[in-house]
Amino acid sequence: MTHPVLLVGAGPGDPDLLTVRAVRALAHAEVVYYDALVDPRVLALATKALCLPVGKRAGSVSTEQSAIEAALVRSARSGRRVVRLKAGDPFVFGRGGEEALALHAAGLDWEMVPGISSALAGPAAAGIPVTHRGVAGGFAVLTAQPADAWHATVAALPPGALTLVFLMSLGARREIVYRLLARGWSPAQPAAIVVGAHTAAQWSWTGPLSELAEVVLPPGPPGLLVIGDVVTIAERITECTAAASTSEDHLATA
Amino acid sequence: MTHPVLLVGAGPGDPDLLTVRAVRALAHAEVVYYDALVDPRVLALATKALCLPVGKRAGSVSTEQSAIEAALVRSARSGRRVVRLKAGDPFVFGRGGEEALALHAAGLDWEMVPGISSALAGPAAAGIPVTHRGVAGGFAVLTAQPADAWHATVAALPPGALTLVFLMSLGARREIVYRLLARGWSPAQPAAIVVGAHTAAQWSWTGPLSELAEVVLPPGPPGLLVIGDVVTIAERITECTAAASTSEDHLATA
Repeated sequence: MTHPVLLVGAGPGDPDLLTVRAVRALAHAEVVYYDALVDPRVLALATKALCLPVGKRAGSVSTEQSAIEAALVRSARSGRRVVRLKAGDPFVFGRGGEEALALHAAGLDWEMVPGISSALAGPAAAGIPVTHRGVAGGFAVLTAQPADAWHATVAALPPGALTLVFLMSLGARREIVYRLLARGWSPAQPAAIVVGAHTAAQWSWTGPLSELAEVVLPPGPPGLLVIGDVVTIAERITECTAAASTSEDHLATA
Repeated sequence: MTHPVLLVGAGPGDPDLLTVRAVRALAHAEVVYYDALVDPRVLALATKALCLPVGKRAGSVSTEQSAIEAALVRSARSGRRVVRLKAGDPFVFGRGGEEALALHAAGLDWEMVPGISSALAGPAAAGIPVTHRGVAGGFAVLTAQPADAWHATVAALPPGALTLVFLMSLGARREIVYRLLARGWSPAQPAAIVVGAHTAAQWSWTGPLSELAEVVLPPGPPGLLVIGDVVTIAERITECTAAASTSEDHLATA
């Protein structure tokens, strides 16, 4: 007998931002294949599991996607309860769809447990709503690699039509700024960088688009870019961001 | 002494898709102001709270936004633990930013607890990843009202450049299809409708864009549209969607 492989979203970092279902899946897991970006505090909830890293982070040891899929199939066929744990949400730049197809092709069941995506919770951690009445009536989520989708989007979209969120794109800042300015975005366009959202290393910057590429980043955790007038909302409520620590303090006294 | 007002995302429906922090916030809440779209099973977790509806659903009794904000301020000043509970994520078409600004203007603290947004979990419930390598390198989230953002986006974006997700837009299907076809999208473009994602009433349809406006919808819950080739991924794994019920069964036997 085999169990369905669970493709589980680990959220942005803080274990309190896992879903109830994800916590339960981790507690029951016997094998967990996790990405390099998964927070160790989340991994610690898989108390009964053999936890195997299969990260594909730039510059580190990596595992081929086909090897990950073969390992998932092998583990599931052995009858183990398998969790594939991915930072954020499995279906947002997480290759969850590819792994679901591979499991399906192998005749195995799978289920997806959504996670809080950093595409939304990353901006929110810095007080930035991706939509706001009268400011932004929609948003686009892009990534630097591959470039075709973001190149086509930036070339076509009128400046300011949507909030732009770039995931895993800090290294492409210079090209992103260049292409936005070439498309007619203002050098003064409000922009933000959020690094390590909802982790202990959270750091953010807001300022004009023209300065975005020059900002010196803290080393370590991944980050995202937000380009849109919604950044000004955060600046107006700057001392009241969604800080995990104060939330904890508040709730602990209840 | 006042407590920070918590702007809490209720997720798409199923209480197991709440975050751990949201469950804790509801358990400690003394007053909960909730939207019409919040699932009753989520509301039931606020066992100690006075729960007050402040929905703004089309066709029903509604509460002015300014009245909601005044009520939040009043309750927080009375020293109660106040939760503002919103379907999905408070910062995705949830007016969370507006309420945060109002609380800030009143000198009150607030914190945002992210929720699983139906913009991502809605498509996922039907097996649709919003991104997929070689198929979609990004996505845009839009809504029918106000129309400026989606009109500008659809007029500008090349067909297929991004996956399009339309929230709260079932009533605008005819105009959406008309504008997409006028922009050069193919009548055969794969599209989907997902209604009541992650609720007991979940229902979905996939088919060509040309038929999207004619589909007869089940009455009741809100829904969303997905337009993009990622819909074909769901069709390839159709018997293995992320069904909440089987997940429960699986985990319960552990």
